[in-house]
Amino acid sequence: MLKECWSNVQEKKPLVHNITNYVTVNDVANVLLACGGSPIMSDEPEDVEDITSICGGLNINIGTLNSGTIQGMLRAGHRAAELGHPILLDPVGAGASKLRTDTAYTLVKELPLTVIRGNISEIRTIANGSGTTRGVDADVADAVTEDTLPAAVAFAKELAKRLNVILAITGAIDIVTDGGKAYVIRNGRPEMGKITGTGCQLSGLATAYVVANPEQQTEAVATAVALMGVAGEIGWERMLPGDGNATYRNRIIDAIYRMDGTTLEERARITEM
Amino acid sequence: MLKECWSNVQEKKPLVHNITNYVTVNDVANVLLACGGSPIMSDEPEDVEDITSICGGLNINIGTLNSGTIQGMLRAGHRAAELGHPILLDPVGAGASKLRTDTAYTLVKELPLTVIRGNISEIRTIANGSGTTRGVDADVADAVTEDTLPAAVAFAKELAKRLNVILAITGAIDIVTDGGKAYVIRNGRPEMGKITGTGCQLSGLATAYVVANPEQQTEAVATAVALMGVAGEIGWERMLPGDGNATYRNRIIDAIYRMDGTTLEERARITEM
Amino acid sequence: MLKECWSNVQEKKPLVHNITNYVTVNDVANVLLACGGSPIMSDEPEDVEDITSICGGLNINIGTLNSGTIQGMLRAGHRAAELGHPILLDPVGAGASKLRTDTAYTLVKELPLTVIRGNISEIRTIANGSGTTRGVDADVADAVTEDTLPAAVAFAKELAKRLNVILAITGAIDIVTDGGKAYVIRNGRPEMGKITGTGCQLSGLATAYVVANPEQQTEAVATAVALMGVAGEIGWERMLPGDGNATYRNRIIDAIYRMDGTTLEERARITEM
Repeated sequence: MLKECWSNVQEKKPLVHNITNYVTVNDVANVLLACGGSPIMSDEPEDVEDITSICGGLNINIGTLNSGTIQGMLRAGHRAAELGHPILLDPVGAGASKLRTDTAYTLVKELPLTVIRGNISEIRTIANGSGTTRGVDADVADAVTEDTLPAAVAFAKELAKRLNVILAITGAIDIVTDGGKAYVIRNGRPEMGKITGTGCQLSGLATAYVVANPEQQTEAVATAVALMGVAGEIGWERMLPGDGNATYRNRIIDAIYRMDGTTLEERARITEM
Repeated sequence: MLKECWSNVQEKKPLVHNITNYVTVNDVANVLLACGGSPIMSDEPEDVEDITSICGGLNINIGTLNSGTIQGMLRAGHRAAELGHPILLDPVGAGASKLRTDTAYTLVKELPLTVIRGNISEIRTIANGSGTTRGVDADVADAVTEDTLPAAVAFAKELAKRLNVILAITGAIDIVTDGGKAYVIRNGRPEMGKITGTGCQLSGLATAYVVANPEQQTEAVATAVALMGVAGEIGWERMLPGDGNATYRNRIIDAIYRMDGTTLEERARITEM
Repeated sequence: MLKECWSNVQEKKPLVHNITNYVTVNDVANVLLACGGSPIMSDEPEDVEDITSICGGLNINIGTLNSGTIQGMLRAGHRAAELGHPILLDPVGAGASKLRTDTAYTLVKELPLTVIRGNISEIRTIANGSGTTRGVDADVADAVTEDTLPAAVAFAKELAKRLNVILAITGAIDIVTDGGKAYVIRNGRPEMGKITGTGCQLSGLATAYVVANPEQQTEAVATAVALMGVAGEIGWERMLPGDGNATYRNRIIDAIYRMDGTTLEERARITEM
């Protein structure tokens, strides 16, 4: 599964339209190039429809949203929807401010999203706003650990089904589910949290992977999650004494650039639940 | 003093709200993670009040200001002030354009700033606009050297007292003063000037340091200045033949990531004046 | 020629005003510092006239344009023109969206551009919109190869003459022409295409080079193109096993930082056509 998803990206070189934050945008562009895809960035409402039309998929990240880019997200999203392009939402900071939470709700409601990728806190915020009682996530803790995993998977499956999306909840343990099957991925390193934007990069990768794997999109997202984690491990192995998070940032993107399908398949720690 | 300030940042992991330029924003985020803090970026006026409320302090940098972000700076600043959060201003380019100069004046006038950090030219611009005759800095040269240091320290003390802020004037020799005591720091390397954003990074660090050291904020700023300088020295020691400013940029952030309080204390060259 | 152009940049340290995209802006700033120049970024319409006035030249890149920055480009451009500063246009994505194409046309029509730098597809779009029949580029293929080179050079010369600009068409083989002489440059590596923003960086370099070489601007652009290519080759020679596009990005900027005029002159592969 992973090898095949990986090969499809190499072959099809998916072009991804990114409306993303200005903090990590350069890394998102370079990681898309590293994985075999291509990035275009555009957030101006008057520009996004044309740009998304020539791409294969749309990656929406609300990390530094503003009133102009929110309009860009909606216009790009509606156009991508018309064209049948996959759309990924990365609801950065949903729950941390009213504007972010409301924008995430609006995007979930108005656009036929293919994937939502966030941390457990952002995804709980999405769950709370999606039309059910607040109690929906009462059993879901603030972090996904081995202890809380079964409850988190159940929560994720239910929410994915309800929203009709592929859900990727990432953290120390990652969960990818379409409401039916769920993949649990145990790759990566805690030091990845000391680099800004590894989540944003993963959202870019996941978009490229679903574009290139239309017939196995859930597997594609799980592969992208494993790819990021394995790259985090390989990048860490190459760290020298004195290296820190700036060098680690480069090492991870380098590892994605150098990845091959066999290594990815062998090192990925994916189970179904 | 330095070791204690450094330890407090490790322990408290201050969350810093940054309204900063899009040129160096990624480095500011990574350096905040490297030092033990956490960054959030948000400049949209409708978003900033919520975001600053969940943070410990606010870092305002006018490097690529626009009409929207200026509103964001003011709204975030007023909210941070209400909450008693420390606010740092980095008046990038004050003196170089009317908009930057006016914006710096407005922020100085309207917000109860905790720290202003800039180069001597920017700080002179601030001095000129803060209600005294233009002659206030007649004795202050364009660069702080050993020769001009006494005059620069006197100028800095007077201005810090008048504005009721901690002033950090950085260059080949750095000055940090609250109007009473003044710290002079002689760390760093000239090659740091060949990397974009080392000043912006320092402003991020200084904000994190004052948040984590509420009872010794002047010492906290001096420690942050020394930290940046020592990291610049350690980073340079790790340069290999062929390495240039791009690698040096990474090495400095890496050195902050790997810093320990004892090394910082030993290598810092701080004197009181 | 190359050594002299290179020396002039070292000596004059040109200050370049950049209105550029937020994806690659940090690399543009660092590459300008690496080459011996200095960058200022400003896109706010109310700020750009003052900023461009203190600079030596203006680099306009439409990679992530929006309605505000388009106004900034025009206001900065008109002011730079009044002051006789060289202006470079990098029409990123012209042809990919109506807004980008129209903006490129407007800038070409309204501003007395000194240089236009783009890939063959962007330059063809410029040609189509510049007042001649669409057939003008009928003989120009989608990529410049040894086979299509003569037709591409003829096309470039004709367009440069018609627009009264220096044209730099970059790709596997690069062409620089002012309508009279044409320089063909065969440096660089295909892996540079796997890094975001090498084109944007080159536009920054080329602007610095024309500012510092007012009496040989065509040669200055050709030198900047060769510099980027040679740096790409030197950077690649320093790659270690496991390194990828993120490290390569740093290595190229490092190589520009470490370049000397003699090495550049010896390694450049420039011919006149």
